[in-house]
Amino acid sequence: MSRTEKEKMLNNERYLNTDPELASDRKKNRKLVNQFNEVAKENPEASAAIIKQIFANTGEQIDIQPDFRCDYGYTVSVGENFFANYGCVFIDVGKITIGDNCMFGPGTHIYSVNHPLDPVERNQNYEFPKPVTIGDNVWIGGDAVIVPGVTIGNNVTIAAGAVVTKSFGDNVVIGGNPARVIKHI
Amino acid sequence: MSRTEKEKMLNNERYLNTDPELASDRKKNRKLVNQFNEVAKENPEASAAIIKQIFANTGEQIDIQPDFRCDYGYTVSVGENFFANYGCVFIDVGKITIGDNCMFGPGTHIYSVNHPLDPVERNQNYEFPKPVTIGDNVWIGGDAVIVPGVTIGNNVTIAAGAVVTKSFGDNVVIGGNPARVIKHI
Amino acid sequence: MSRTEKEKMLNNERYLNTDPELASDRKKNRKLVNQFNEVAKENPEASAAIIKQIFANTGEQIDIQPDFRCDYGYTVSVGENFFANYGCVFIDVGKITIGDNCMFGPGTHIYSVNHPLDPVERNQNYEFPKPVTIGDNVWIGGDAVIVPGVTIGNNVTIAAGAVVTKSFGDNVVIGGNPARVIKHI
Repeated sequence: MSRTEKEKMLNNERYLNTDPELASDRKKNRKLVNQFNEVAKENPEASAAIIKQIFANTGEQIDIQPDFRCDYGYTVSVGENFFANYGCVFIDVGKITIGDNCMFGPGTHIYSVNHPLDPVERNQNYEFPKPVTIGDNVWIGGDAVIVPGVTIGNNVTIAAGAVVTKSFGDNVVIGGNPARVIKHI
Repeated sequence: MSRTEKEKMLNNERYLNTDPELASDRKKNRKLVNQFNEVAKENPEASAAIIKQIFANTGEQIDIQPDFRCDYGYTVSVGENFFANYGCVFIDVGKITIGDNCMFGPGTHIYSVNHPLDPVERNQNYEFPKPVTIGDNVWIGGDAVIVPGVTIGNNVTIAAGAVVTKSFGDNVVIGGNPARVIKHI
Repeated sequence: MSRTEKEKMLNNERYLNTDPELASDRKKNRKLVNQFNEVAKENPEASAAIIKQIFANTGEQIDIQPDFRCDYGYTVSVGENFFANYGCVFIDVGKITIGDNCMFGPGTHIYSVNHPLDPVERNQNYEFPKPVTIGDNVWIGGDAVIVPGVTIGNNVTIAAGAVVTKSFGDNVVIGGNPARVIKHI
């Protein structure tokens, strides 16, 4: 029996993003995300209940400022005490797993999906899920990008404007484009 | 007979951006863009009809996620099968011409206008239109900026977070700030 | 008599961002900012009256495009003839002081607060205000970030996508990540 595109996606295999089941999932999620943003704009405290419906797992304490965007939501797990400032975007095809006590500055983008480099394959709408994992106590300083497949350790500070193109271990400050270690903590 | 500021703008000459005709054009466009974003938030499929009114030319297939912003719209032409993810911004004073099968990641900014470097001239509200041209099968990986006057060839991948300050030919992956060739495809 | 957290914040000392008085200030400001964005979306000219209520000081002429975000507003002073394009964000804990005739491109982020590098202290919600000062006739080319504590002189152009991590004097063009002098004007 052949697997569905959604099963392939969730298993980090090449899948077709035009699949109707996935389109329907994105549509359901879009509705919740719009609702979240409307509430978060007026009353961030009341919006936590909605984000808990969007993500697979969260801690008790979660504060995301509007406008937040994600495509599926069910691929995202965040730990206790999570804060994301204005305008964060998760392109969350592969799993995005975030530890405890993380703070994301405004405009932080995390992408967990790649398109093929070959234009012919890319135009056929194939995509590759590439999970992103972020440890505990990670502070991202705003307007940073984490590209597909990256793992970040614990106690890491990512400087504002960093473009993180590879994985980094614990206890470092990273920054730049591409991001490099600036300091050990 | 002297030409209007709009004629100068459309002819890529220094023009005055405080011109009332241009202000009126921006106002009309703003109304359509707001309408587009409202519809796209709920139902991206239904929003294609509105973006086709905004841009000078599009293909049949076009999908732009909210919130999208542009100033004029009538300076923008996109080819068949265009996709732009959340939060893209076109400051579209000079022509922005985009080929077929292009995909723009979230937060892609394209600017086709420069201000004068001289503060005195800049404060008089003069601007220089500088068209931007992007070929076929170009994939922009998100949070990238294309500055005024840039031409990008076919089959180009622009890495997430790239700041593209000069033109590049076909079949390359570019990235960094300023963007450089990373790989040939 | 011990000072309040707000007094410490306004005095650029370590303070607790969970303080109820400050939370109440952010709530009041959020309401005004939402109102500003709604009006600015339809009619930027009419929105100037609202932004004048939000900021501590402005000139007569001020034009900020939606969606704009700031946390407090009362820490921000801008000079005469200020323009900020779509999607600018001020994390305005420390004072943000901007001179006359400044133009900010879309997605310009200014942050005037730091979190501690030490995760234990950071998780206790302590923050450090770090004022940002920008001179007269400064043009920021879009998608740029100014980090906490930076001072920028007069007649400076900051290239699109720049990440400004240190201070710069008058009459320079700066760009890159981290930003460096590209040219003297």
